[in-house]
Amino acid sequence: MGILGSMEPLPASGPIAFVLELDRLKEVWRKNGIHGSSRVENSAEHSWHGALLALAFSSRMPAGVDAHKVSRLLLVHDLGEIDTGDFLAYGKDEAKAAREERACVERVLDMLPISDRSELLALWTEFEEGRTPEARVAWALDRMMPCLENIAAGGGAWMEHGVRLEQSLARNAVIGEVFPELWDEIRPRLEAVFASSRLAG
Amino acid sequence: MGILGSMEPLPASGPIAFVLELDRLKEVWRKNGIHGSSRVENSAEHSWHGALLALAFSSRMPAGVDAHKVSRLLLVHDLGEIDTGDFLAYGKDEAKAAREERACVERVLDMLPISDRSELLALWTEFEEGRTPEARVAWALDRMMPCLENIAAGGGAWMEHGVRLEQSLARNAVIGEVFPELWDEIRPRLEAVFASSRLAG
Repeated sequence: MGILGSMEPLPASGPIAFVLELDRLKEVWRKNGIHGSSRVENSAEHSWHGALLALAFSSRMPAGVDAHKVSRLLLVHDLGEIDTGDFLAYGKDEAKAAREERACVERVLDMLPISDRSELLALWTEFEEGRTPEARVAWALDRMMPCLENIAAGGGAWMEHGVRLEQSLARNAVIGEVFPELWDEIRPRLEAVFASSRLAG
Repeated sequence: MGILGSMEPLPASGPIAFVLELDRLKEVWRKNGIHGSSRVENSAEHSWHGALLALAFSSRMPAGVDAHKVSRLLLVHDLGEIDTGDFLAYGKDEAKAAREERACVERVLDMLPISDRSELLALWTEFEEGRTPEARVAWALDRMMPCLENIAAGGGAWMEHGVRLEQSLARNAVIGEVFPELWDEIRPRLEAVFASSRLAG
């Protein structure tokens, strides 16, 4: 057999392994659904959704915010879930989850050259800390998507997991902080969904 | 009933409608699979994968290439599939597909303010035309992902759809143009998968 017959296994580290490792985020299933579908969303497509919205909502962002940076923050923000999976955003052990996710991000990024690794780790950390103007916008978009998906579903994951109106308003307050005009459109609909659910219950 | 009972329907256009419209790309199913999974990939998670790789492979790109721009190109490159769906990359009517996809992109982006719309349409067009250095890198990444997924699957979509070795080498040649060192690792494995399939067949 010549070269055509030599089935060398795929590398266990380095760039090729990194490409295939990322596939695992496509199998991390979230709590919220997808508009017009009966399945739940995974963290890879959720990350795409946010990163694209950062470009599409550029003109609505507070002055001085770098929309392209927001997009990059959202691309990497869920990388830590490759090992930990998604968890319910209400009532978790935040510090423990953050430690486990950081360990995963560092493990995965170790497959890359140091300069690429550094940029991605800095983006993940900036999102996680949530302090810069770009991170605040990224948080708002990260929460707006499942919020609208739950509203469109008449309650969705909120009702399935017994989330209360006050918890939902607290978690989504960052949407109002960053996009006050959009929040004026979203908030009454969110409240109506919870009210309707109480009436039905 | 007060404000809590007023279930106003979600808007049919504008930013909120745009958020929900993007969910449709999560239901556009591609031909290739996902490493470590039995299902095929959708175009939303595929777009995330490419956009993140553009950041992760920054140091491997030809000198002068704007890796962040490559990432944005990959975020929007499949938007036209919301209406048309994915098609087999071998043997399609390229001109007709491009016209239909452009019409979809324009329809979806019409929900956005003009400045945001213009940026996204320019990105989609640049990827589609494939002439700039950034677009060439984006093409290479777009092809590298399913290529490795097919290799990892021992043939995958290539075998299922009767793709020939020469077709696969022609389509993936752009990987060698942009990332020659990676292509030296990928090409023999690609050839081995086709050779093994011929032996098995």
